[in-house]
Amino acid sequence: MSISIAYLGPPGTYTEAAALAYVRTLAKETPRESLLCPYPSIAQALRAVAQSHVALAVIPVENSIEGSVAVTLDTLWQLDTLQIQQALVLPIRHALLSQASTLELIRTVYSHPQALAQCQGWLETFLPSVQLVPTNSTTEALQYLNEDLTTGAIASERAAQLYNLPILASGINDYPDNSTRFWVMSLQPSAGGSHTSLAFSTPANVPGALVAPLQVLASRGINMSRIESRPTKRSLGEYLFFVDIEADTSQETVQAALSELAAYTEIFKIFGSYNVLLINSQTAANR
Amino acid sequence: MSISIAYLGPPGTYTEAAALAYVRTLAKETPRESLLCPYPSIAQALRAVAQSHVALAVIPVENSIEGSVAVTLDTLWQLDTLQIQQALVLPIRHALLSQASTLELIRTVYSHPQALAQCQGWLETFLPSVQLVPTNSTTEALQYLNEDLTTGAIASERAAQLYNLPILASGINDYPDNSTRFWVMSLQPSAGGSHTSLAFSTPANVPGALVAPLQVLASRGINMSRIESRPTKRSLGEYLFFVDIEADTSQETVQAALSELAAYTEIFKIFGSYNVLLINSQTAANR
Repeated sequence: MSISIAYLGPPGTYTEAAALAYVRTLAKETPRESLLCPYPSIAQALRAVAQSHVALAVIPVENSIEGSVAVTLDTLWQLDTLQIQQALVLPIRHALLSQASTLELIRTVYSHPQALAQCQGWLETFLPSVQLVPTNSTTEALQYLNEDLTTGAIASERAAQLYNLPILASGINDYPDNSTRFWVMSLQPSAGGSHTSLAFSTPANVPGALVAPLQVLASRGINMSRIESRPTKRSLGEYLFFVDIEADTSQETVQAALSELAAYTEIFKIFGSYNVLLINSQTAANR
Repeated sequence: MSISIAYLGPPGTYTEAAALAYVRTLAKETPRESLLCPYPSIAQALRAVAQSHVALAVIPVENSIEGSVAVTLDTLWQLDTLQIQQALVLPIRHALLSQASTLELIRTVYSHPQALAQCQGWLETFLPSVQLVPTNSTTEALQYLNEDLTTGAIASERAAQLYNLPILASGINDYPDNSTRFWVMSLQPSAGGSHTSLAFSTPANVPGALVAPLQVLASRGINMSRIESRPTKRSLGEYLFFVDIEADTSQETVQAALSELAAYTEIFKIFGSYNVLLINSQTAANR
């Protein structure tokens, strides 16, 4: 039986590259067919899993330059049923795709706002007077290339191959260590592993309200690898906290720490324990 | 002598509304002329202050629904010289502007990604099959309205008046308590006030590295009203923390706390102490 996997599409996005790498590791464990299903938004991909239309969803969580993907955190908090099966870390390498023969001809560059932001320095140096136009995905930017020889789009080298478009410049991201972390989500209990992700709200306007739960982790020597605040959307100044720890909930000491932590919070959610797969850039490039 | 104030333009944006409200409070204190200067990006507005092209910049920091404005925090960390003079909180009320006579005619809606996100529920209910197109600002979205009777744009009611465009629906934001916080930045030392903003990096991969500085504040009863993490951009998993506290650095106890806090951090920056001005929605609407 084949397994259906939702991802933030269309084909050619970095999320598809992460999903393809995940499919290859799945195939090594249990050979079976995977069906990749592109969705137009992260929220729709996650809802497709929550409503059992697909078994899994691969969605971006955080980029090393631009930070958290807010819609991912907000949607996971709302849906409340999905568990993390695996984290994937994909190196990001942006290219400028264009039908133009030289950079001098380019007047407009299209791409996802995160990709434009990640190439800001390169754009200011080599294309200082072009107009930057945001699109919903790096793949969507490509549709503007055939119409006009004065346009460029920032996308992956894989997208260039997939849609048969020329690469005018590659490796144009400002920071060489640019990578994005993805999560594989499903309705199944999480697989267990080296990392655990949590989220909680704290009582408002209490000095030290956040310190108490963090102190529980620190006092037991549990490393917090990430903390991210998101607004509760009730009123300015009220937050939820998303925390990643280097620990597995299957360990009794970790379970005890989380029970104690829960006592200092208002709403407390555990998104599961999972391992992290570092995707080789070479592997990512080959379909 | 007139005072020049940079803001995220063009005219008609919410940032302009915040800047206008600030100008009115300035005029009450010392009557003098203000010159509002629109800039195409937050980074450019901040750099204009750093390079003394303008005296002040008004820039968005945080929205109650969508969270932090990442580029503001990242640019302030890089520039390192600007101090906060004042915080402004503006209620946000979105409207759908269009030349179309009814909602049924609309096929495409243009706006800034944050505005589209803040009206997501309304759009799914009343315009479920329209195409959503991101733009660089809510004002930029308006340029698409005259060309085509099947388009709409999400912007403020003030923008509708300013550009003489019809309002098809108003108050369309999903959460009624939608507000945005702005900072007024300059090269001058901050004015002092009820809130202080800090930023710091912590030693990487040390359990409890973040707890120690927060504990310093909590143990002295200083309330932390906000904490936000941003990537260092060096590698995935390394963060800076932006913290707001309810305290004035002119107080000796606060100075002592911050000296102690600095000892637990790598790089430590203080962006100054300032008061918060709540802008009345009625005041904001009148120019």
